Amino acid sequence: MPFRATVLTLYPEMFPGPLGVSLAGRALDRGEAVLETRQIRDFGRGRHRAVDDTPAGGGAGMVLRADVLADAIDAASPEGDGRPRLLMSPRGRPLTQSFVRELAAGEGALIVCGRFEGVDERIIEARGLTEISIGDYVLSGGEIAAMVLLDAVIRILPGVMGNDQSGVHESFEAPFLEHPHYTRPAEWAGRPIPEVLTSGNHGAIERWRRAEAERLTRERRPDLLRRGAGKTNGDDL
Amino acid sequence: MPFRATVLTLYPEMFPGPLGVSLAGRALDRGEAVLETRQIRDFGRGRHRAVDDTPAGGGAGMVLRADVLADAIDAASPEGDGRPRLLMSPRGRPLTQSFVRELAAGEGALIVCGRFEGVDERIIEARGLTEISIGDYVLSGGEIAAMVLLDAVIRILPGVMGNDQSGVHESFEAPFLEHPHYTRPAEWAGRPIPEVLTSGNHGAIERWRRAEAERLTRERRPDLLRRGAGKTNGDDL
Repeated sequence: MPFRATVLTLYPEMFPGPLGVSLAGRALDRGEAVLETRQIRDFGRGRHRAVDDTPAGGGAGMVLRADVLADAIDAASPEGDGRPRLLMSPRGRPLTQSFVRELAAGEGALIVCGRFEGVDERIIEARGLTEISIGDYVLSGGEIAAMVLLDAVIRILPGVMGNDQSGVHESFEAPFLEHPHYTRPAEWAGRPIPEVLTSGNHGAIERWRRAEAERLTRERRPDLLRRGAGKTNGDDL
Repeated sequence: MPFRATVLTLYPEMFPGPLGVSLAGRALDRGEAVLETRQIRDFGRGRHRAVDDTPAGGGAGMVLRADVLADAIDAASPEGDGRPRLLMSPRGRPLTQSFVRELAAGEGALIVCGRFEGVDERIIEARGLTEISIGDYVLSGGEIAAMVLLDAVIRILPGVMGNDQSGVHESFEAPFLEHPHYTRPAEWAGRPIPEVLTSGNHGAIERWRRAEAERLTRERRPDLLRRGAGKTNGDDL
């Protein structure tokens, strides 16, 4: 069974968008992953198919209604659907590569894309939505965040990357940032490739890469070293 | 002058993609932001317009060539172009709302989207690219990451959000996650809206929201409290 993603959104026309091209696009074409969208507005209320209303207690913006979202979720993910239900939200659990791997090992995901000021809290509780944040910034909605999550997942599904790239850096057991890369030309604009990389000494090359990865991580992301392996991007970076 | 983004990519057909719809789409239509793409392959080498080559020192994957990227960058951003040059990369500085605000206050950005194993380190040094990471996970390329950054920036450009939403939560001086939201119906599936929100007591509502925001932040993201305001999403969440 391929990984099956169902995205609930007010903008189904955004999908597959960038996921229809390149690596993810080929995976979708070959059926290694399935991407469906559902228009939340189809479950809207009244003649205008209203999906939102003003916040209880006042304030700016609009809030997506719990009853509308419940109908959309129940139609897309009936009882017995074992897929996790995610809500893309800046309040959520930060997306990590280990959660990406967990998702990729499962049967798929239901992904709710918020818009406006947010969604009624009761739907999060009543339908067991897991809030996922892709980072500490604010987007206009959950759609591009859902694309981020899906691109990360689809990329590591079985068969999606060729043998060429799969398993890259499995030897990295620590959560290091990637070492610097170089390719031809050997000298460019007065800048040579570091000598060790053209030495043919594989042990020395591995030691240099490891040392550079450690140095970059210490300089740029000491928080990754503190958090340790497993909770971060780990072997995939 | 509108904010002007130039994206260097091997997949220009991915753009504007989701940025062509909804809030960002309207901003682009109205000229509040300008989005251009450049095909890196137009600067490729030889009959096949090669843009990448094998990594010096061996290993899996392919590396984008420094000379090819230099030509693409120089064509898109000649001397005198004061816009920051960004490279979307998991090794980069984590994107934050304060960096989003900084970008939005400027004239635009040149954004290089990596693919394959990475880009030749020499181009990062030679053209002063700032590496930006949208989060601790691995994507198939920089394109969707660039969309994340651009959506976050375009959203807060002058005029893009209506008066209705602009300035929301400016009263938040601390880096708190957003409090829960509720809207009609007042009772749904046996779940009422918290009484305080329908009390009409604005002081009590503000206190409740503040306490809930603090509680959620303490429970979910104690790291935000430690980092303090200004370095994080701050008032926009």
